[in-house]
Amino acid sequence: MSFYDASVPAFLQILGSLSGILTKAEAHCKAKNIQPDVLLGARLYPDMLPLSKQIQLASDFAAKGCARLTHSEVPSTPDTEKTFEELKQRLAKTIEYVKSLKPEQFEGADTREVTFPVGPNTMTLKGQQFLSGFAFPNFYFHAATTHGILRHNGVEIGKRDFLGV
Amino acid sequence: MSFYDASVPAFLQILGSLSGILTKAEAHCKAKNIQPDVLLGARLYPDMLPLSKQIQLASDFAAKGCARLTHSEVPSTPDTEKTFEELKQRLAKTIEYVKSLKPEQFEGADTREVTFPVGPNTMTLKGQQFLSGFAFPNFYFHAATTHGILRHNGVEIGKRDFLGV
Repeated sequence: MSFYDASVPAFLQILGSLSGILTKAEAHCKAKNIQPDVLLGARLYPDMLPLSKQIQLASDFAAKGCARLTHSEVPSTPDTEKTFEELKQRLAKTIEYVKSLKPEQFEGADTREVTFPVGPNTMTLKGQQFLSGFAFPNFYFHAATTHGILRHNGVEIGKRDFLGV
Repeated sequence: MSFYDASVPAFLQILGSLSGILTKAEAHCKAKNIQPDVLLGARLYPDMLPLSKQIQLASDFAAKGCARLTHSEVPSTPDTEKTFEELKQRLAKTIEYVKSLKPEQFEGADTREVTFPVGPNTMTLKGQQFLSGFAFPNFYFHAATTHGILRHNGVEIGKRDFLGV
């Protein structure tokens, strides 16, 4: 199968599942009379990033990851979302962007070099190594941390919601 | 690059990082006078699985995932580990097993069918879909949940520990 098949469906699966998880989190707020801001600002520890930022980062590792792999212009994302609805729109835009990339753009991308920022530095890896060693683990990390924050706060979701099945 | 390159290094990276994270968690117990059992039994919510089980599951999704992809005998794992040391041995054995598989065994595995248990049922997917849609998201889910449980309990680790950089 192609490098497109190794990249795009994995991102789309979890981006879609995150949207479903946010719908359940928003419904939980309404049912339990919780201010949405409280849940959107929830963290697993005071120096960890809050829920809203976890979604923004998962979105970025998907969109920017695919952009870098295809040597496309990296989408700009100002992180302005403050509500569940806005975060779901962010995910929807990310899904739309990832879907807009064509299988041809991924041809040869597994062995092509990708140079990307890591903190104040840059790093260069082959596309496959960038995907397996950087984009995927970062993407899944923020997606699973989203799930963990919501579970810890009593939202009734499970691994099936995370997998999007 | 090969399907081996798309599978094995990703598992090895995070299995190694989980071992490092457990070393830090064990040191944290000693420094803070915490009974190791307490941290090994910690959960993000009462009906979630505890830390020890997260490690066992991450280990299984890596080892069994690679076994199924290569149509090798699926390793048996009785989940008997009760200490940090035993869990690190479990990870070390998993790493050894994944490393024992040869690139040739992954040739054509992306388009070959994999039949695997999902709860009481079985499911059949092409190897690439099994890896991207099932083995990876489950593996990263339990690895990141391990990180989340430990962060929530004050262990001083960060995403760099998760990434193994």
